[in-house]
Amino acid sequence: MTDTDIFGQQVPVLIRNVRLNGKTQEIYLDGTGKIGAVSEKITEHDAEFIIDGDGATVLPGMINMHTHSPMGLMRGYSDDMQLFEWLSTKIWPTEAHLTEDDIYWGAKLACLEMIRTGTTAFNDMYFKMEQVANAVDEAGIRACLSYCMIDGGNHDKFESEVNVMESTVKNIKNRYNSRITAGVSPHAVYTVSEEGLTWCAEYAREENIPIHVHLSETEQEVKDCVAAHGMRPPAWLDKCGVLSEHCIAAHCCWLDADDITLLAKRGVTAVHNPISNMKLAGNRALPYPELKKAGVNVALGTDGASSNNDLDMFGEMKTAALLQKFFWNDPTVMPAGEALQIASPNGAKALGIKAGVIAPGYLADLILIGRNPLNVPAFNTDSNAVYATGGLAVTTTICNGVILMNDGIIPGAEEIMQKAGSVAENLVRRATAQ
Amino acid sequence: MTDTDIFGQQVPVLIRNVRLNGKTQEIYLDGTGKIGAVSEKITEHDAEFIIDGDGATVLPGMINMHTHSPMGLMRGYSDDMQLFEWLSTKIWPTEAHLTEDDIYWGAKLACLEMIRTGTTAFNDMYFKMEQVANAVDEAGIRACLSYCMIDGGNHDKFESEVNVMESTVKNIKNRYNSRITAGVSPHAVYTVSEEGLTWCAEYAREENIPIHVHLSETEQEVKDCVAAHGMRPPAWLDKCGVLSEHCIAAHCCWLDADDITLLAKRGVTAVHNPISNMKLAGNRALPYPELKKAGVNVALGTDGASSNNDLDMFGEMKTAALLQKFFWNDPTVMPAGEALQIASPNGAKALGIKAGVIAPGYLADLILIGRNPLNVPAFNTDSNAVYATGGLAVTTTICNGVILMNDGIIPGAEEIMQKAGSVAENLVRRATAQ
Repeated sequence: MTDTDIFGQQVPVLIRNVRLNGKTQEIYLDGTGKIGAVSEKITEHDAEFIIDGDGATVLPGMINMHTHSPMGLMRGYSDDMQLFEWLSTKIWPTEAHLTEDDIYWGAKLACLEMIRTGTTAFNDMYFKMEQVANAVDEAGIRACLSYCMIDGGNHDKFESEVNVMESTVKNIKNRYNSRITAGVSPHAVYTVSEEGLTWCAEYAREENIPIHVHLSETEQEVKDCVAAHGMRPPAWLDKCGVLSEHCIAAHCCWLDADDITLLAKRGVTAVHNPISNMKLAGNRALPYPELKKAGVNVALGTDGASSNNDLDMFGEMKTAALLQKFFWNDPTVMPAGEALQIASPNGAKALGIKAGVIAPGYLADLILIGRNPLNVPAFNTDSNAVYATGGLAVTTTICNGVILMNDGIIPGAEEIMQKAGSVAENLVRRATAQ
Repeated sequence: MTDTDIFGQQVPVLIRNVRLNGKTQEIYLDGTGKIGAVSEKITEHDAEFIIDGDGATVLPGMINMHTHSPMGLMRGYSDDMQLFEWLSTKIWPTEAHLTEDDIYWGAKLACLEMIRTGTTAFNDMYFKMEQVANAVDEAGIRACLSYCMIDGGNHDKFESEVNVMESTVKNIKNRYNSRITAGVSPHAVYTVSEEGLTWCAEYAREENIPIHVHLSETEQEVKDCVAAHGMRPPAWLDKCGVLSEHCIAAHCCWLDADDITLLAKRGVTAVHNPISNMKLAGNRALPYPELKKAGVNVALGTDGASSNNDLDMFGEMKTAALLQKFFWNDPTVMPAGEALQIASPNGAKALGIKAGVIAPGYLADLILIGRNPLNVPAFNTDSNAVYATGGLAVTTTICNGVILMNDGIIPGAEEIMQKAGSVAENLVRRATAQ
């Protein structure tokens, strides 16, 4: 096969001359979406395509555990504002105009950006998720897609949200695409009623799918929850049945010791979103040292691209490691290896997929980072990946054994950028018209 | 001229189809290192080379106002450690083995990394600076180079440091290279004696060159200074004559209101180094809102690549904007436009060079960022540059009217990466040998 033919094909592939755990290795992808072998020399193989890594670092594909993929359409539309003013005058009025076509192109742009920056799976929460599923299907990456329920305490709204949730889950399950799975997202304790939270918990259990929720992002959320329900957000979610090993909770900044004990006991995954928390001035960092001590599975996410403003998990890893050291006043907190751990294997664990590790039998979701001036010298490829490069340093992205980017080239990228750019301009034009 | 011939030539150049301040513009570089014209259409010109920007964003080249360029040789060699343990067991023992050849290749790597990530000038503090000057000369960028005096309160050491300082300044001045200027660096209040600080201040005044110093990086430094001299570091530096409009002070985390008033009164430039401060857990951010209110010129720097771990000013801008919002608990602090301001024009002001602005008569130091999936849509190119892309998104770097990188290609990059990589390995081998 030639370099051009290989895109989109799931065939046996041999990757030569890549650095893994301090050694030069070869990796054989078996043509069924899995890693077949990893060793210093693979002589017998049926590879139809060979990648010469030329000393590139190989890593498992990044797993972005909390985002709202179509929000890239609003990237740079408004920044540097107070949270509520930003939401109420910029984001929500624009979102009200989002069509199915907008969502589709927003998700196409997000998938393109993720492939470009080495992310092979993401956990998404938004609406019109059938369109996101179409984009993910075409892009070739993995996603867990959840419709985001917001009932605002209104029973009629709750009932209509239930209908949308059920039809979204049905639509996604009926695709029988192993790369695309469904989840359930009650937005947060302050936007979803008790009946909404309880129903979501029950429904996620019945369907045996993840439940993806915002949790304790701001101090106000905690105060309001205590005022309304007499308990902090984790306890309230637990009372509604939401907390379990299928629960993926984003942000988790304002947790106290009891909150952490409860999350640990229930097996919840806490997702760190450091860039969004810093940009919106959340005033507290996820308590990583305490969560780690309690044995909570911590993962990493970018949040949406209008509060970040990108989906680059390398930037997110670096910021996570920096913020944790700075906020907890200890430069030994979250060393580079742990930043890589939360950015991939811990996400895979939460999603229940066998990924995030480069070893035989695991999903063939992996990326190469070629040599560039920012990752020389190569004393520690983990450190270089976390602290010294960035997602644009990724040269090759492979998901499910299929090459999605090779040597920086992604087929169809230009069309997606053009179309998403004009869709975004048109959206804002409609949203700001009198 | 062809794409290959153009490298290293100072000839008239026309740049077409680039975005500047929300408009599509053309830029004419006059062949003498300056910008000749900026307008929507330039019809009459003598350009020998034309760049089609294809809608790229044009920005002034970044100006890295505090770094130790050869330290890239120790990138990733040690991270995630307590500051003093890191310095005393890893950095200092390795630095003790640095040869002139090591410094040269370390600086070559740094210049390559800066060109790759859109930096066209830097303010450097280290030793064996003649080697750094050689590397800067060959690379084609600008630098202000200062020998770093550390006398440790020892008079004999002071005298030998004076000799090195004088010979370094003489060496650099005698090159008569407009891109390379000399500075004077007393390391910090805790490593240089009163006679050392006083002499450096006097010498910098005589030579009419900048004085580049670390200031109030850690709380300990402030406490120790008060204990030793009965005053805080800025007041002590002022007593020694160091503070003036030629003084460039790095870090400036632990400043109080009186410190800020004094820096403003003396016209000192304060350099923000957010990534280094976070990585080493400095426990306080530079007080940007107060410095801004007092009218202090604030610039931006990466610090050395062993405490960052890169020289990418785009990552530094994003982290600066994030840290300022987070630490001062206000998402409106340091909007994108101000991050760009500290990253280039404010640095130019401190160095006394007419750069950092894209307008006729200014130095032709500028960069292009081509479209990529991270900067679509293009509502706000400032926001995209600060929050959404990174230095690896830079496609073209021009300094002094000379094209140093075009379409991501830098002649000789491969040799520099190979050589610097092996020099670094050899250095650590020597430093860790019994």
